[in-house]
Amino acid sequence: MKPLKLGMVGGGQGAFIGAVHRIASRIDGHWDLVAGALSSDPVRARASASELNIAPERAYTDFIDMAAREAARADGIDAVAIVTPNHMHAAPAIAFLEAGINVICDKPLASTLQEAEAIATAVSRSNARFFLTHNYTAYPLIRQAREMIARGDLGKLRLIQVEYVQDWLTQELHNKQADWRTDPARSGAGGCVGDIGTHAYNLATYVSGLSATELAADLDSFVPGRQVDDNVHVMMRYENGAKGLLWSSQVAPGNENGLRLRIFGEKAGIEWGQEAPNQMRFTPFGEPTRILTRAGAEATPAGSRNIRAPGGHPEGYLEAFATLYAEAAQIIRADRGQATPDLESHTPDIDDGLNGMRFIAACIASSRDNAAWKALLGEQVT
Amino acid sequence: MKPLKLGMVGGGQGAFIGAVHRIASRIDGHWDLVAGALSSDPVRARASASELNIAPERAYTDFIDMAAREAARADGIDAVAIVTPNHMHAAPAIAFLEAGINVICDKPLASTLQEAEAIATAVSRSNARFFLTHNYTAYPLIRQAREMIARGDLGKLRLIQVEYVQDWLTQELHNKQADWRTDPARSGAGGCVGDIGTHAYNLATYVSGLSATELAADLDSFVPGRQVDDNVHVMMRYENGAKGLLWSSQVAPGNENGLRLRIFGEKAGIEWGQEAPNQMRFTPFGEPTRILTRAGAEATPAGSRNIRAPGGHPEGYLEAFATLYAEAAQIIRADRGQATPDLESHTPDIDDGLNGMRFIAACIASSRDNAAWKALLGEQVT
Amino acid sequence: MKPLKLGMVGGGQGAFIGAVHRIASRIDGHWDLVAGALSSDPVRARASASELNIAPERAYTDFIDMAAREAARADGIDAVAIVTPNHMHAAPAIAFLEAGINVICDKPLASTLQEAEAIATAVSRSNARFFLTHNYTAYPLIRQAREMIARGDLGKLRLIQVEYVQDWLTQELHNKQADWRTDPARSGAGGCVGDIGTHAYNLATYVSGLSATELAADLDSFVPGRQVDDNVHVMMRYENGAKGLLWSSQVAPGNENGLRLRIFGEKAGIEWGQEAPNQMRFTPFGEPTRILTRAGAEATPAGSRNIRAPGGHPEGYLEAFATLYAEAAQIIRADRGQATPDLESHTPDIDDGLNGMRFIAACIASSRDNAAWKALLGEQVT
Amino acid sequence: MKPLKLGMVGGGQGAFIGAVHRIASRIDGHWDLVAGALSSDPVRARASASELNIAPERAYTDFIDMAAREAARADGIDAVAIVTPNHMHAAPAIAFLEAGINVICDKPLASTLQEAEAIATAVSRSNARFFLTHNYTAYPLIRQAREMIARGDLGKLRLIQVEYVQDWLTQELHNKQADWRTDPARSGAGGCVGDIGTHAYNLATYVSGLSATELAADLDSFVPGRQVDDNVHVMMRYENGAKGLLWSSQVAPGNENGLRLRIFGEKAGIEWGQEAPNQMRFTPFGEPTRILTRAGAEATPAGSRNIRAPGGHPEGYLEAFATLYAEAAQIIRADRGQATPDLESHTPDIDDGLNGMRFIAACIASSRDNAAWKALLGEQVT
Repeated sequence: MKPLKLGMVGGGQGAFIGAVHRIASRIDGHWDLVAGALSSDPVRARASASELNIAPERAYTDFIDMAAREAARADGIDAVAIVTPNHMHAAPAIAFLEAGINVICDKPLASTLQEAEAIATAVSRSNARFFLTHNYTAYPLIRQAREMIARGDLGKLRLIQVEYVQDWLTQELHNKQADWRTDPARSGAGGCVGDIGTHAYNLATYVSGLSATELAADLDSFVPGRQVDDNVHVMMRYENGAKGLLWSSQVAPGNENGLRLRIFGEKAGIEWGQEAPNQMRFTPFGEPTRILTRAGAEATPAGSRNIRAPGGHPEGYLEAFATLYAEAAQIIRADRGQATPDLESHTPDIDDGLNGMRFIAACIASSRDNAAWKALLGEQVT
Repeated sequence: MKPLKLGMVGGGQGAFIGAVHRIASRIDGHWDLVAGALSSDPVRARASASELNIAPERAYTDFIDMAAREAARADGIDAVAIVTPNHMHAAPAIAFLEAGINVICDKPLASTLQEAEAIATAVSRSNARFFLTHNYTAYPLIRQAREMIARGDLGKLRLIQVEYVQDWLTQELHNKQADWRTDPARSGAGGCVGDIGTHAYNLATYVSGLSATELAADLDSFVPGRQVDDNVHVMMRYENGAKGLLWSSQVAPGNENGLRLRIFGEKAGIEWGQEAPNQMRFTPFGEPTRILTRAGAEATPAGSRNIRAPGGHPEGYLEAFATLYAEAAQIIRADRGQATPDLESHTPDIDDGLNGMRFIAACIASSRDNAAWKALLGEQVT
Repeated sequence: MKPLKLGMVGGGQGAFIGAVHRIASRIDGHWDLVAGALSSDPVRARASASELNIAPERAYTDFIDMAAREAARADGIDAVAIVTPNHMHAAPAIAFLEAGINVICDKPLASTLQEAEAIATAVSRSNARFFLTHNYTAYPLIRQAREMIARGDLGKLRLIQVEYVQDWLTQELHNKQADWRTDPARSGAGGCVGDIGTHAYNLATYVSGLSATELAADLDSFVPGRQVDDNVHVMMRYENGAKGLLWSSQVAPGNENGLRLRIFGEKAGIEWGQEAPNQMRFTPFGEPTRILTRAGAEATPAGSRNIRAPGGHPEGYLEAFATLYAEAAQIIRADRGQATPDLESHTPDIDDGLNGMRFIAACIASSRDNAAWKALLGEQVT
Repeated sequence: MKPLKLGMVGGGQGAFIGAVHRIASRIDGHWDLVAGALSSDPVRARASASELNIAPERAYTDFIDMAAREAARADGIDAVAIVTPNHMHAAPAIAFLEAGINVICDKPLASTLQEAEAIATAVSRSNARFFLTHNYTAYPLIRQAREMIARGDLGKLRLIQVEYVQDWLTQELHNKQADWRTDPARSGAGGCVGDIGTHAYNLATYVSGLSATELAADLDSFVPGRQVDDNVHVMMRYENGAKGLLWSSQVAPGNENGLRLRIFGEKAGIEWGQEAPNQMRFTPFGEPTRILTRAGAEATPAGSRNIRAPGGHPEGYLEAFATLYAEAAQIIRADRGQATPDLESHTPDIDDGLNGMRFIAACIASSRDNAAWKALLGEQVT
């Protein structure tokens, strides 16, 4: 089957996440990058496109222009990847959705809840698909954990403990990444809570299958002069009486990308961390702890999909990211009748994006109100 | 030097912690068990005493009687260990303190704050010493962590994350241990929060050297019919702006005695868990993580004391407990001019006990008030 | 820069390692797969090619034909990947080398030392390059370990302990992979020793920079009826007096792909395992153990190359494999004056292949002679 | 029950293992130390005895004298602990055995095979018991592993991998411990092989239940000027076709007391290390790895004995050592009809001591003969 054609907005020279998206799109051979508005700076846009073997006529400097012209081409792109800073998600997303082009958007969904809702409106009006790259959801053992919980292996859930802990902002720091991620104008009012807190929150609801109902949050900016939060403590309440703690931080020395999830039910628990993503502890009450491995013994159907290397050959961050691109391709092809719909996959979409934005808003509101409980209105798990 | 003479209240046949105290008292040879009121049941008291080679005339059935008669003997006990359920700490502690006999008391201090304060009053009026067996404080690497923080290795502290997680009460359970620990009349109003939450809290303040100022707690009793909490979520605020989360649970399958402490400052962090107590991670910002081992390279003075086996030969729970008994002996002997006072040791005492009771009371009050912030009045770190 | 054009011999439907090579070739965008002799079965060859979007006229059923016709095309392939079973390496490798086409060959080099030497002769006569995919050598921390040793961080080396342990052949097993790997006619006289023992051996010499001088090997076939070894014990002697043990096994339950390397010198040691490839222990004598992370603090120049995701985002098996494809592309372009030669990379080549074959031969000879010492003649580290 | 009375030979001020024996003897309250020939230096002997509250008339300077006088006392010692350097085991052991006094002797049994056989002769002629403190055999999970293997949980055994690795002799070192352990006159011809290699070997046979039949050993003295081996590589062959590697070293930086055992059978494997002795991996083929914990789920009868603290409260080196003292007390009392014989315990004795000496002798002989195979004559597992 021929690869689909991908465009990209953002991700020019010096960017980080754009390169990750490109590798992810290549790994399984489902996508060819053929067009881009890689930078708002025309010189950088052209140079970046050239490096990536994008034909000059498809190296745009303006995403509005790109959406219009790609929509008009017979060989126009099948989807666009939006990899700009948060405040630059809404405008291109809406432009491509309105042009009928599928969108693969980085997270968090936007820099404000208002922008997020505007995207959601555009999604509801468009025939095109919208995918949100909550990449951690695509690790095979995360899929397996979700499936184990859904089928009752843990019993009724009681506790969801999640954390995403880094250290790179322990001190004052200035570089391209740090600058936009700590600038409220570009990242939104949330700093750490938006950048990685949303990942933690998304993973907790994604795996547990439970919506959060309310939360109490205590946010801090430990580094003097920092305008956004760099540490986030949250007490969570989920539907059906489950409770949880959520911690995200960018000022905890010794932590690189410590995303860790522990869920406990009446019958068993699971424990997983993304820095060692090919193992998961499964702890049935009253029995020895079992080490489940990616594609290993007792792998469930969901844990056995999207496997590229045998057990014991570690797959990592890029492979999980690639699974989202593979699933987007599969869904788009199925929409066109070119492939079988894959009813079992659980690719994050606009609802995950909205939930994340509501989480950010609730955390900020709660923290400003001395950690009073705030409802997560409209929260839904899909 | 001759061993000191120890008496014991509680700890008869079928008890758990009494046996632990006895082993701890024997390990370093500082104590001989010579007297006891081991049970309120006279038959069991005598049988237990006989098993332990206690002379019949010092096998008491009444601790009041025991305090009086031991105080009157020329060869009376040098200290009494109180190892009864929580609601039976205050009466014997006060009786022995009033008799001028040193007390080594299990934790938490009492079943109510009122009882705790009565003990404190008795301590203040007595010449005798009062020791509280917060045993986890005596692991060599915990002593080292405390010392590293005090001397500034971590810089100003920002974050204190502590948890103590078990699974033994995941389901309804009835046996001697479960029964009294889940009975408010014997354990006090706190269940999990008193039994192990106090250990977590104590360790956090002990190692950090910081007092907590206020907390917001969300307590649950997940097992139907349980009369006390079995899961505890707390957001903590410490003096000087440090923050923290505290989680204790007895319903998290796969956790035996998962007491874990992580502290982060402006310059570095530490991470320690009691199930692997002979290693500690030290994470200076911008440098590789270092694995510090008990009595190993870069051991500090405090981490080099009370070492009984070379590095790599694991010491554990009983050895840490024994260190408290060794320190109690040293302090008692120093009080009598028979030994050099050890100014550097940090043996938990009545202040730790009161702080723990205030922590329990604040958690329960906060949780009843929908996790509103409650001050930890009178909190002090010593 | 335009991708290079890749052909493939072997790797049709149902194969394992061919798919790995294809992903590896795609990850960094340096290669397009445009031609193949994917199977000796014409029907399967065409079907496989079609699935991979290879044009029908470049879907060959005969590698001789393929070498000739690709060499003759103006847009002929820049390199061919040979991913057939071991006994089918030599013939295509020689054919493409004689046609002046660069070869990327899976390991071990061949099924016999004779075949291996024939390939080496062809390499020496050809202007084309020969690369051997000893993929484990390309993990960033392996490159870093090699560099640390070369610059003296460990001091003079004394001990090299290496093992590669699996369990998949613990019982009798029949499938496509098991069948050829346990068939002396296809895998060569060595079973486990050739399949994974060579990886262990290669890694030991690659990282240490030391040649082995002699070995004593005790090989077993534990599973009844198995015609090749499934467990390998070797005592190794290296130049300069270093010693080591090497263990490879396919019958050790609980081991998936347990390739582990420990090297100790007069001043320090390192420890690394491929199932957690993003961490490495560095153990300077008399200092705390340090956990070095991929692209983390104190990463060396060699450990900082070929990094696709930030520290803490795990890279794995496929990324290391991709680095070999990236380096092959870089070397081929440099040969053509289209890129700067990368003098610092250490891509395995024909010498590694020959050394591996000598290792297999020596192990088999030693084991047949009751583990007598056998010299590794001609051994060289490059 | 009254404690038994213990004497000690060796273990005066400045010694290491004597203090360990004393703690071990105290932990369970079965022994009182009442007599000693703690040093051959009379001043040190008396001072050491006084520190330990040994009555002056039982502070001997001569073990011959001690054996005679203790045997003659109505309240004479029930056993003597011999904790001198290896070359000083035989003479006191024989003296006490001839006096009819039970002996608890440190390992290795002696400094020469001749001395060892003299002890064995004395054992066979005496009514007294002889215990050898191969302390690692008494970890609860080691007892459990032995039992699991004996009852067939692993199936027929194929592989036994054992290592005991330290780093303290990485460089030239002079202190009391280093001096005698590297002096052939005091430690015997074996250095590392006797000091810790025997522990590794003993543990392998103890747990597997298999005798070794022959071995090929390559010994080195890496540190210039060292008169005994400091690194030991051995290929082992056991009865019934099992094979193994054994590595012991005192020059591997980063290793404190790394005693690790892995055993694999046709059905499953186990993996245990003494630096984390409260967990053991159990790896049934085709199933997830299970983490067995001391006294935890699926603990076997043997793994449930000699438990002093609940699961998750780590027990360590001293507790395992104490179990040997508890078992010696039990056996001695059973011999006198004062206790029930414990048929299920497996306390190391003279046979283990002889096997260890034969292992040392075979290693040295093999290494001198360029690692030729040497039989382990007379080897027996009991």
